[in-house]
Amino acid sequence: RINPDRLWDSLMDMAKIGPGIAGGNNRQTLTDADAEGRRLFQSWCEDAGLTMGVDRMGTMFLTRPGTDPDALPVYVGSHLDTQPTGGKYDGVLGVLAGLEVVRTLNDLGIRTKHPIVVTNWANEEGARFAPAMLASGVFAGVHSLDYAYGRKDPDGKTYGEELKRIGWVGEEEVGARKMHAYFELHIEQGPILEAETKQIGVVTHCQGLWWLEFTLTGREAHTGSTPMNLRVNAGLAMARIMEMVQTVAMENQPGAVGGVGQVNFSPNSRNVLPGKVVFTVDIRTPDLAKLNAMRARIEKEAAEICEALGVGCAVEAVGHFDPVTFDPKLVASVRAAAERLGYSHMNLISGAGHDACWAAKVAPATMIMCPCVGGLSHNEAEEISKDWAGAGCDVLLHAVLETAEV
Amino acid sequence: RINPDRLWDSLMDMAKIGPGIAGGNNRQTLTDADAEGRRLFQSWCEDAGLTMGVDRMGTMFLTRPGTDPDALPVYVGSHLDTQPTGGKYDGVLGVLAGLEVVRTLNDLGIRTKHPIVVTNWANEEGARFAPAMLASGVFAGVHSLDYAYGRKDPDGKTYGEELKRIGWVGEEEVGARKMHAYFELHIEQGPILEAETKQIGVVTHCQGLWWLEFTLTGREAHTGSTPMNLRVNAGLAMARIMEMVQTVAMENQPGAVGGVGQVNFSPNSRNVLPGKVVFTVDIRTPDLAKLNAMRARIEKEAAEICEALGVGCAVEAVGHFDPVTFDPKLVASVRAAAERLGYSHMNLISGAGHDACWAAKVAPATMIMCPCVGGLSHNEAEEISKDWAGAGCDVLLHAVLETAEV
Ligand SMILES: NC(=O)NCCC(=O)O
Ligand SMILES: NC(=O)NCCC(=O)O
Repeated sequence: RINPDRLWDSLMDMAKIGPGIAGGNNRQTLTDADAEGRRLFQSWCEDAGLTMGVDRMGTMFLTRPGTDPDALPVYVGSHLDTQPTGGKYDGVLGVLAGLEVVRTLNDLGIRTKHPIVVTNWANEEGARFAPAMLASGVFAGVHSLDYAYGRKDPDGKTYGEELKRIGWVGEEEVGARKMHAYFELHIEQGPILEAETKQIGVVTHCQGLWWLEFTLTGREAHTGSTPMNLRVNAGLAMARIMEMVQTVAMENQPGAVGGVGQVNFSPNSRNVLPGKVVFTVDIRTPDLAKLNAMRARIEKEAAEICEALGVGCAVEAVGHFDPVTFDPKLVASVRAAAERLGYSHMNLISGAGHDACWAAKVAPATMIMCPCVGGLSHNEAEEISKDWAGAGCDVLLHAVLETAEV
Repeated sequence: RINPDRLWDSLMDMAKIGPGIAGGNNRQTLTDADAEGRRLFQSWCEDAGLTMGVDRMGTMFLTRPGTDPDALPVYVGSHLDTQPTGGKYDGVLGVLAGLEVVRTLNDLGIRTKHPIVVTNWANEEGARFAPAMLASGVFAGVHSLDYAYGRKDPDGKTYGEELKRIGWVGEEEVGARKMHAYFELHIEQGPILEAETKQIGVVTHCQGLWWLEFTLTGREAHTGSTPMNLRVNAGLAMARIMEMVQTVAMENQPGAVGGVGQVNFSPNSRNVLPGKVVFTVDIRTPDLAKLNAMRARIEKEAAEICEALGVGCAVEAVGHFDPVTFDPKLVASVRAAAERLGYSHMNLISGAGHDACWAAKVAPATMIMCPCVGGLSHNEAEEISKDWAGAGCDVLLHAVLETAEV
């Protein structure tokens, strides 16, 4: 078993970097805080005898050698970047649990046939640079390096510029590494495990996603002196699209979600009807056909809503992944580990996207989940218990050991 | 008659300061561009022999002496500040037309019994610091100086700090001046005059306004892993309130408007349901009872919408004025001037708020309007013709002359 106190202390130490305003973290991708978090993680890994490689996307790979020089490594990881108002565990748990697995193997003097590589994927959250899971997406060949380097934050700074600025452009070609297997421990970010009082989620699938960025063009006009019948009201069109997205999600129950997290009005002045409204619709479901049907319906009905108001409507897909089925052999190994360790468990479909979803394109991959209080995530109040973290990390240790072979 | 070419040249020269991005202006209150615009106006006025007084709100008063030392001045003015994406005429026309009246009287060697004071009211637009018509509101005793000094822009800078920074804190007590009459020429900012092919709007009333700033509190949560039935979705509540405001405005036709110009989501990240949504509803109508009934209905229905979604709802009135009836004698003088000069005219209710609305609280006041192309304002594409400007300024000259007495 791993050392839950040591894992917890590392989580708390990492949380000191890029503190939020309400007990959580703001350690967004490629900020100075991100660089500081990377250096702390690097120093811990070096203390544990790992050697670092960094790829051109800035993803960190920390290797513990195996006994067989020909064996491909087993990768264990997640991400250290956070939302602007993020929690202390989302992503961080998976990276530091990987380190804790290595520390435990060191303590016990266990060598594995396959090397073990603890991984910190860059820009998982996608809050600063859309889409999410950007570096693992390039790794899996889903995006080109040029596409990724050109992604812009809200201030217009590019991923490429900012990666250089914080000094984390690595030399490795992205995706050159081959994996024997990929494991990721993550908090559920949803309410199911807690509600069912299970310690371990055996993640069999991940639901698919579309991020649809709408740019609505209205006519900037005075809110007071422009009669109702002469308005070209892009804000009203947005409101109707939001309600329609809610309807589409509700009519696709069970197992579908839809919502809007980001809205920008311009010029955003109290007495000016907006000339431009940009907002992103996030829709997800584990069913591929349903996912694409939801997208098609939303685009069609949005176009109708806008047409009725004379508002221009452009849609760009700024994020997407198909639903994922994780590797049955690795899933079975996670389930067996939970069973062996005496932890209660259940099958789970991941509601959020994860680097494991892209890793699954190029290697056998799976995930392990632990509960989080109230299912709350992407909120500084995100919380888990030391026991939950410890149980998840124990299962990770056992599944990794079985796959990396002693 | 005034000199329309000279008026137009001054308008074009002023428009060079704080240029916009699409042919209009961004000369927001208390910015460096505002200070530069003020200096240019001051220099023109000094060339025309006027002497300047500035009050503690930063409003500029440029005086042409009268022949009777006991006669109260006739005030003529408007504002030089603009929206972030504003036009070249909104406000500016009224200030520079006042200057053109003085220049014309100088040319003709006409002295008036009452002094004439050309006025540039500070912060009329309210785009940077809500509410609109702030300095004239303090002048009329509607707001205290402390309240005005404490108003914050989106970066948290206060009116008091910024007025000091640009060096325009005057020494005059705000509102100490007494007015014989107040005239304001302004573009209509609406479509009626152009549609009716009238050159002059004789403004009899101004509609009243409420700006209701809603702060909705939802629960920040992951857009992917938070099931629909567990969401506390402040964004959806906002969408429903926007649709409801539209319904309320439509059900109060004719003569009512309602809309939303400003929206701020937080944390405004694509995969986070907003924890907080702040937006401002702008409702107006010339009928006081209707205005207040609309406000009450909107607040009640918004509370119901929020309650059904579990969303917290707080409302603050950040701007307000009751409908205004302008001084019948001055209105008649404007109408007579248009008649005498042979300009087509009609009665008009102002759709927008103006400094004249507050001046009307402390003095006989009225307004003159000229058409604008397509009724478009609060848009960089705002346009008027030199003839329209000239006709409006001619009427202003005649009405001022009659009131200031030769
Ligand atoms: N786990 C997580 O929050 N990833 C970000 C991508 C997503 O929105 O699902
Ligand atoms: N004229 C004008 O646009 N004033 C600003 C206040 C308002 O929104 O009516």
